[in-house]
Amino acid sequence: MRTVEWDYKLNEVRMIDQRLLPGEFKVATLSDFQQVADAITNMVVRGAPAIGASAAFGLALTAMRSKANDVQSLRTELQIAADTLRSARPTAVNLGWALDRMISATSTFDGGLVQLQELILAEAQSIADEDVEINKRMAAHGAELIEDGDTIIHHCNTGALATVDWGTALGVIRMAHEQGKRIHVLLDETRPRLQGARLSAWELEQYGVPYEIITDNSAGYFLSRGQAQKVFVGSDRTAANGDVANKIGTYMLALAAKDNGVPFYAVVPTSTIDLSIASGDLIPIEERGAEEVLDLQRAGQPISPHGAGARNPAFDVTPNRLVSAIVTENGIVQAPFDINLPKAVGGK
Amino acid sequence: MRTVEWDYKLNEVRMIDQRLLPGEFKVATLSDFQQVADAITNMVVRGAPAIGASAAFGLALTAMRSKANDVQSLRTELQIAADTLRSARPTAVNLGWALDRMISATSTFDGGLVQLQELILAEAQSIADEDVEINKRMAAHGAELIEDGDTIIHHCNTGALATVDWGTALGVIRMAHEQGKRIHVLLDETRPRLQGARLSAWELEQYGVPYEIITDNSAGYFLSRGQAQKVFVGSDRTAANGDVANKIGTYMLALAAKDNGVPFYAVVPTSTIDLSIASGDLIPIEERGAEEVLDLQRAGQPISPHGAGARNPAFDVTPNRLVSAIVTENGIVQAPFDINLPKAVGGK
Repeated sequence: MRTVEWDYKLNEVRMIDQRLLPGEFKVATLSDFQQVADAITNMVVRGAPAIGASAAFGLALTAMRSKANDVQSLRTELQIAADTLRSARPTAVNLGWALDRMISATSTFDGGLVQLQELILAEAQSIADEDVEINKRMAAHGAELIEDGDTIIHHCNTGALATVDWGTALGVIRMAHEQGKRIHVLLDETRPRLQGARLSAWELEQYGVPYEIITDNSAGYFLSRGQAQKVFVGSDRTAANGDVANKIGTYMLALAAKDNGVPFYAVVPTSTIDLSIASGDLIPIEERGAEEVLDLQRAGQPISPHGAGARNPAFDVTPNRLVSAIVTENGIVQAPFDINLPKAVGGK
Repeated sequence: MRTVEWDYKLNEVRMIDQRLLPGEFKVATLSDFQQVADAITNMVVRGAPAIGASAAFGLALTAMRSKANDVQSLRTELQIAADTLRSARPTAVNLGWALDRMISATSTFDGGLVQLQELILAEAQSIADEDVEINKRMAAHGAELIEDGDTIIHHCNTGALATVDWGTALGVIRMAHEQGKRIHVLLDETRPRLQGARLSAWELEQYGVPYEIITDNSAGYFLSRGQAQKVFVGSDRTAANGDVANKIGTYMLALAAKDNGVPFYAVVPTSTIDLSIASGDLIPIEERGAEEVLDLQRAGQPISPHGAGARNPAFDVTPNRLVSAIVTENGIVQAPFDINLPKAVGGK
């Protein structure tokens, strides 16, 4: 199954509960937009593209299960649902992008209630389907950057689980592997929620890609000893100048790559590029609860003294000077990013 | 009690079992050098100065509990014990430094068996006592670098638990706090063994120093937002050129400090400076077992898929170009380190 998908029989959203992997494979079924918003906030589903598709399906739930008697009432319900979904997490731009696209698709609509419901569901399904197709195009572009024998450092999870299917940075790695290139992946475990050790490892097991897990703080060690030739990451939001907001730790990884002359690539669908934001300083960074740092993942066992506090920013910004190139579905974008990113977004 | 100490009534070594903190305060009692070597390898005791003192007491155990009938037999026993202790962990230089000093103290000895035993114990006790005194001198020097209102990022544990008492980098922080400076500490949790979240947090609770725990990968975020003004770390071995081998993650932290113009200070007793090693490239880096990465600390619960591999280097090397100054018990050493470190080691 896909990471998130529509159940046409039951008019439900089904998504893989990513909090439980790799120990347990469980599918959550959601029947209203509030459940979808909660699933995004609580990271049942995570990854910028997967969040975008989930939000779109959240609106589809509102439409398909609405008790509205007319088009205007349904439009009002959709707007309320969109506002709630939009605030589920602040950093990934795909959330807003998908909701804007959904609302925009209805803006010139002047048919009846049932047609509007069908249009909303069809648009959500399109977003999901296009995500898979876009990822495969990105993977083909990005795989050109990988050479036979490369060891690649990867941060967080950017695979099928972070998208509707296939993945961004991990999709590039998977493509290179399927092309027969002999590669090895060092997976940053990605504290505090360990998406690398849990989710990316689980995916690479299934694809048969050789990997080892490393602590985030040891990437510099391997880079400084010539034990990694490429770094690939995703992005939750990329500013117009190529500054990359991504999972916390990406910035320090990029510094270590730069210090050792190792290329650092961000793999980002154009839906993740926010041309309205001039630089990364302006991207809102979510700070999550201290308990994610203080309690070991799912162990329910505090690691720190009673009463200890913690800070928990979920993302950071990697300045464009540390980014070697940005891989999009429309090709590989080189610096100057402020000139070349808008062209890529425009499909040129 | 001290982190490691001699029990004069029972002729035993007592040390705080640091694997159990902060959940449990338990004192291990050791009665032969092999137990001491195991305690060092398994990290019952850790931290370069604490390891050095423990090794010295390991030789004292051999001496005081020896069944040797003559001085030569005891010397042979001591040499065997020293060889075992020396290989307990490879990176920290204090281990070899303390053992060399112990053996050297006996080299011109020409008395009887009992006097040799007493001399060995007295030398071990001197190493332990001097460690505390040296740390306090370092703390006084280092505290001059801290200003009222500073937020300080600290890596691993370098406090009383990493030494015989008082600490190195954390000792500097404690001293600044006791001088009445209002400071805040962001403690790197320090994966995989979480010495920061467990041990440094436990110490700062007791000293009353305000702190928060952060993931190692988020230090760059706080530095880039101007939320930290200083970085203080310890060192397991510092090369003659000022390259600093320290707990894994130190190098990436130093890069992030440099990238944001934040001073990065290493606090190192001269016993940790290895003038026989020209640069950090030559320092042996211990790689420990994968299970430290794959199993959450003490949770006995794997975080990764069955069969996942991991790499686990315990230390890395921070090049001297990233080091703002090195604090020793003989004062604050500035670059060029290859000129100034030997002077500091010589007490000038």
